[in-house]
Amino acid sequence: MIRGLDILHLFGLLGSAVFAFSGALEAGRKKMDVFGAIVVALVTALGGGTLRDLLLPGKPVFWVTDPQPVIAATVVAVLTFYTFRPLGTASRRALLIADAAGLAFFTVLGVEKSLACGISPLISVMMGTITGVVGGIIRDILCNTIPMVLQREIYATASLAGGVMYLCLGPLHLIPAERTVIAILTVFLLRLLALRLNLALPKPPEGRDSAEGL
Amino acid sequence: MIRGLDILHLFGLLGSAVFAFSGALEAGRKKMDVFGAIVVALVTALGGGTLRDLLLPGKPVFWVTDPQPVIAATVVAVLTFYTFRPLGTASRRALLIADAAGLAFFTVLGVEKSLACGISPLISVMMGTITGVVGGIIRDILCNTIPMVLQREIYATASLAGGVMYLCLGPLHLIPAERTVIAILTVFLLRLLALRLNLALPKPPEGRDSAEGL
Amino acid sequence: MIRGLDILHLFGLLGSAVFAFSGALEAGRKKMDVFGAIVVALVTALGGGTLRDLLLPGKPVFWVTDPQPVIAATVVAVLTFYTFRPLGTASRRALLIADAAGLAFFTVLGVEKSLACGISPLISVMMGTITGVVGGIIRDILCNTIPMVLQREIYATASLAGGVMYLCLGPLHLIPAERTVIAILTVFLLRLLALRLNLALPKPPEGRDSAEGL
Repeated sequence: MIRGLDILHLFGLLGSAVFAFSGALEAGRKKMDVFGAIVVALVTALGGGTLRDLLLPGKPVFWVTDPQPVIAATVVAVLTFYTFRPLGTASRRALLIADAAGLAFFTVLGVEKSLACGISPLISVMMGTITGVVGGIIRDILCNTIPMVLQREIYATASLAGGVMYLCLGPLHLIPAERTVIAILTVFLLRLLALRLNLALPKPPEGRDSAEGL
Repeated sequence: MIRGLDILHLFGLLGSAVFAFSGALEAGRKKMDVFGAIVVALVTALGGGTLRDLLLPGKPVFWVTDPQPVIAATVVAVLTFYTFRPLGTASRRALLIADAAGLAFFTVLGVEKSLACGISPLISVMMGTITGVVGGIIRDILCNTIPMVLQREIYATASLAGGVMYLCLGPLHLIPAERTVIAILTVFLLRLLALRLNLALPKPPEGRDSAEGL
Repeated sequence: MIRGLDILHLFGLLGSAVFAFSGALEAGRKKMDVFGAIVVALVTALGGGTLRDLLLPGKPVFWVTDPQPVIAATVVAVLTFYTFRPLGTASRRALLIADAAGLAFFTVLGVEKSLACGISPLISVMMGTITGVVGGIIRDILCNTIPMVLQREIYATASLAGGVMYLCLGPLHLIPAERTVIAILTVFLLRLLALRLNLALPKPPEGRDSAEGL
């Protein structure tokens, strides 16, 4: 039988790996060197969970006492930097898929860890979204691109939907791992669907001053 | 009789509301969607107080255990996004006034909370300024504009003056709420005066290399 | 006899001073006012150590309980702002040297403080690098230049090398101050050497999509 805790730990490492991949990829696209790639990969992989642990009362930051995610992210970053050579739009697509997976893993882990700390459901869902999006935001700021979360696409929305889905599954008494996996898939598939269908949230209403661009 | 604690709580919510307004306004000016507006509103409303609580020893972060400011900021962000349609310079002016009010509320709350933690007056004034300016700095970085605090205007100066005013009022034995309100008005009016009169701190001395712009 | 703790405290103040100098210099180059210079100097001087103390379990943030580094950084910022008027490339060179010194002091202090908290050697070296580079990263983001750490130069690498050197000196049973000084010089000289010889880490392999610039 698979224990819930092992699954959580595994999913945490998986999330770190895919976010590290996305960070190293973006760093490579921006012509950074291998250390730049490692730095960007580490902040992408660790950023969201670090902020979550700082915000949760009395929590040590997860990677400070357990170097596994740091090692995993570094290895993935180096491998990505030296082996991945996509041309044209392929790297952009790989980046978007890895980012969606990281968003999904980290959102659900953030919700679970916050609820386990006795935080209210509303704030726990918010913590999940923080865990999911902050790493990618720092990655994009360091790489000087507009953060994905701020673009007019279903991004934070997918993360929030996954958090709410996790809460809604509570009364169904599923095996913990099932609940986790369903919520992760909710975020991941919603995000991919949004990318595929080019879904976006509605624009701001007309009539605003349109002279100023971004 | 109005109790000091209720006033503080009320002023905290007011500060969150005006900063959320300023964040949603700026997000709308930058053509973000409604979720981008909520994100920017939340970080503007919560950013300064969050950093203050992280820095103060043994403090839980205020909104993690009490969702009220989160709810207030979200509601204000959504209302602002869908109803506020200023043209031309009106939105810029509303933004500056809301930002000045948020700066004022949060500066004084930051000073009070730090002193209550037994922090020295010098660092407490600095904590007040951090509480006041950090939310706006993150808002401006997310919206890709130069942070107001770094522009050559009386901004951090107004915040510092309010903190010093709060300290100076100590020996006068006012009712706590009076002391708070006077210090808040000091920041707010100084900031508005600076905007009105186009006051600025002195430029750096001549002779610097002027080839590089911002 | 010089006690280890006094040396650490002294090096901490020295690190704050050179980073404050680098921050005020960069702010002056960007035509900020004196308060902008103080803000940039403070975040450069305090940023890395603040993040380190937040990440280390149960540590108060160093400057919150001891205003000395704040005062030192502020004084240096004001003096730099009003007296330093380099022309041409001189300010750029002074900035690079001060930044290298700050990187060296803070890296080694970060490693020492983390080891003293019982953190594993691997993560302690990483904490040293965080302490060394984060202040400069925030400085560069606030001043809207590409963070030095992300440019293709030996920067984080010098910091990591100093941290590893500090660990390797452990079994030699030196006087603590000697070990500290040797590790500091390792970072500083490596960084200066890299600047002098224009050393850089290898570029990403060819074949990447080169159409997108930074």
